[in-house]
Amino acid sequence: MKIAVAKGDGIGPEIMDAVLSIFNANKVPLEYEVVDMGKWVFDKGFSNGMTPEAQQTIEDLGILFKGPMETPKGKGVKSVNVTARKTWNTYANKRVFQTLHGVDTVFSKAGIPIDVTIVRENIEDTYGGIEHMLTHDVALSRRFITRPGSLQVIRYAFEMAKKKGARRITCGHKANIMKITDGLFLECFYEVAKEYPELKADDVIVDDLCMKLVTRPDLFDVVVLTNLQGDIVSDLCAGLVGGLGFAPSANIGDHICIFEAVHGTAPDIAGKNIANPTALLLSGLSMLRHLGFMENAATIENALLYTLESGVHTGDFGDKSIASVNTTEFANAIIGNFGKLPAHGAKPTLPNKPITPTHFKLEENPLIMSKEAANEAIVGVDFFVEFAGQPNDVADKCLNVIGDKFKLVTISNRGTQVWPKGSVFTNVVNQYRCRVESVNDAPIDQSAVAELYLKFQAEFKVCSLELLNMWDGKKAYSLAQGQ
Amino acid sequence: MKIAVAKGDGIGPEIMDAVLSIFNANKVPLEYEVVDMGKWVFDKGFSNGMTPEAQQTIEDLGILFKGPMETPKGKGVKSVNVTARKTWNTYANKRVFQTLHGVDTVFSKAGIPIDVTIVRENIEDTYGGIEHMLTHDVALSRRFITRPGSLQVIRYAFEMAKKKGARRITCGHKANIMKITDGLFLECFYEVAKEYPELKADDVIVDDLCMKLVTRPDLFDVVVLTNLQGDIVSDLCAGLVGGLGFAPSANIGDHICIFEAVHGTAPDIAGKNIANPTALLLSGLSMLRHLGFMENAATIENALLYTLESGVHTGDFGDKSIASVNTTEFANAIIGNFGKLPAHGAKPTLPNKPITPTHFKLEENPLIMSKEAANEAIVGVDFFVEFAGQPNDVADKCLNVIGDKFKLVTISNRGTQVWPKGSVFTNVVNQYRCRVESVNDAPIDQSAVAELYLKFQAEFKVCSLELLNMWDGKKAYSLAQGQ
Repeated sequence: MKIAVAKGDGIGPEIMDAVLSIFNANKVPLEYEVVDMGKWVFDKGFSNGMTPEAQQTIEDLGILFKGPMETPKGKGVKSVNVTARKTWNTYANKRVFQTLHGVDTVFSKAGIPIDVTIVRENIEDTYGGIEHMLTHDVALSRRFITRPGSLQVIRYAFEMAKKKGARRITCGHKANIMKITDGLFLECFYEVAKEYPELKADDVIVDDLCMKLVTRPDLFDVVVLTNLQGDIVSDLCAGLVGGLGFAPSANIGDHICIFEAVHGTAPDIAGKNIANPTALLLSGLSMLRHLGFMENAATIENALLYTLESGVHTGDFGDKSIASVNTTEFANAIIGNFGKLPAHGAKPTLPNKPITPTHFKLEENPLIMSKEAANEAIVGVDFFVEFAGQPNDVADKCLNVIGDKFKLVTISNRGTQVWPKGSVFTNVVNQYRCRVESVNDAPIDQSAVAELYLKFQAEFKVCSLELLNMWDGKKAYSLAQGQ
Repeated sequence: MKIAVAKGDGIGPEIMDAVLSIFNANKVPLEYEVVDMGKWVFDKGFSNGMTPEAQQTIEDLGILFKGPMETPKGKGVKSVNVTARKTWNTYANKRVFQTLHGVDTVFSKAGIPIDVTIVRENIEDTYGGIEHMLTHDVALSRRFITRPGSLQVIRYAFEMAKKKGARRITCGHKANIMKITDGLFLECFYEVAKEYPELKADDVIVDDLCMKLVTRPDLFDVVVLTNLQGDIVSDLCAGLVGGLGFAPSANIGDHICIFEAVHGTAPDIAGKNIANPTALLLSGLSMLRHLGFMENAATIENALLYTLESGVHTGDFGDKSIASVNTTEFANAIIGNFGKLPAHGAKPTLPNKPITPTHFKLEENPLIMSKEAANEAIVGVDFFVEFAGQPNDVADKCLNVIGDKFKLVTISNRGTQVWPKGSVFTNVVNQYRCRVESVNDAPIDQSAVAELYLKFQAEFKVCSLELLNMWDGKKAYSLAQGQ
């Protein structure tokens, strides 16, 4: 079987070579096709950080094993890591954080074992990168959460939790504040949970989760979160086990999967053959298991654990009284320990499974969609307008143009209601939200909204608008603070 | 001087009584006016969780000392804590996390001292609660960051850091992904940093910050963040010192300040007189210092630290071999230790300062605004449309109506470009973003956008639109992933 390999920037090539030397020594039956991806590809003028040939190869092979990559700084450039995850719809980021004996941490010293798996939604949230300046003072990022996107990652998390025999699966969220977006994610979680009655499913608010992870990390097993919260929690957990140098990462999609080291490219030590390949190796082991090479993965992982326990270490960690080894020596030590078992946490050696290639040809973009509500009605519109003045003056201008089909319901500034009532202490910026609803909540046509927009834009610069919907008799939008 | 006191729900009244008994025993020259606020006020039908009289009293007095409060569950109800912070524009949430001897934590056992102050922006971000369902499958939360709002909290953080003689002030952010919103916050941070050359100012990506806080918390001193990231990091830090029971909170505004315990209301132990009043007491000490009662604060804090060191504890923490005391006994132990100094971290006794009342009457809402760009131009519009089909079909419909003033630049789905080119592996939901720009980037009138909107809404349900602006020749909006 052939997979695509992108060695990455900085220390990427040397740690990738080390890991592939371990795989080859263990006779992993894989061939590697190296593709062009990373900062140096940006620098050649490819704005998404990969050549068209690289993209084609990855799509043909279905598996990408990837070293760390750098995204050039600048407002017009998107992260190559994020682009890759989004283009190929690797909707689940799975990261396993486990105590490694030989890697000292605050928690290992306190005798608290870590074994937690974070599944992070990998496509949505503010990672869509949909941002606009509304006024010179007001920046907006559109944070979206979708029902089918949430179901995809949550289903993956439950299925994975079931396979690993997890004792608990927890949804981390902020639905107490983001009642509609994170509320939707949480609703999907409990919807899927019904299909897995054998798993203990519960939820926790993300700030509380972080507090608990630094006091009682052993309480958690599998945790599934939205994108940004999952990003933060993942790195927190990486800290618990010694840092990104010890934390693997797998990006799982229905067609293409990416296994990668997510630490930096460490340009200061690049080319010196002293970097630590552990995170990339652990990511590679995750890939081997994904592909069915269970026996190879167990042999290599046990050799890695044995090597770490024996005190062998690169310069970035371990017992300073023992001389460090370089990247090649570290890889060779692991190779030399094939067949040995660590004292702690030895992995059972399961037989290799037949390979199931995960990729196939698609004719068109998969449309992921759930059923629609029975009754849908447009009942109003929020206009976000630029205005440098007092709330009553905004209201007067709105009331001038609103006509008799609509009523002005509330005006808010930064989410807090300032009209018809509010507090004089509420500081206001030069952008107001004017909420207009139909008289008697009667369903209206879009054309009525369009007519009103024509009138509003004669009075204001309308930076954004959002339709207000009712579904099955319920408002599909939030109230203003204080409304 | 008189301040407003809201005792809170659950254990709120008993811990508030304990703290006020300590203040009274120390002859703190304050009078307390108790106001109606909390879950029971929601239950009486006040949708923002406080009576009009309570709001008036708080606005007259300028200081609110507040126990924990519960927000009833339900989509139509906003958190009373968030409403209070937003209505009164308490733009900075300051929380000090310090090792308390007598409170065992993973970090105290490892001998790692904690002394970090988190300043969290308290108004903006997704806490605006501006959320809409765009389609039955797609939920949107508008995450906004403003320049004047960012400058307010960052200025407060620098001023506070200077006063406390901080060795470092750090901006936590996610500007590598949210380049426009968090980019703006970061830009404001370095703009203010120029005014404080004596302070070492730097920045760190929030996920990296969380990893470092659980490995080397001693590296940080003052950290300033946007609202949600600050919320998560605050609670992580609370975990480092033993939990929310040991973490004070101050909400600082120009006119009104709120000092509060942010832990839960613990309804299961309410009324039993066994709750731990430490967090509320620490919040109260922060209030006393804010008001200038430096000597009272030092005496009480030293008595608290001495009491904790001596092993006195409520049932929720401390050495289990020593019998726990109840809330009243804990307060009395502190009172009995007035004048004693702890072995670790004794606070210097500074003389009281003259009280500067922080509140005054406002005639209108303060408009906070920075100067505008010299050259502003509208150059296009993003239409967010509902469509359950393939990217090319969306494009065809757009091209039918676009006319000759505009060009269709890109179509994306969940932020990833799917037209004019993209990957067939990108899963699509039933909502597309169609970006239309003026031909030759010529500045256009809003009326041209309105005309185009009329045509688009005849083809699609247009869920949202966002204007595209150029300021001083630069795009004030982001590219799509892969564009």
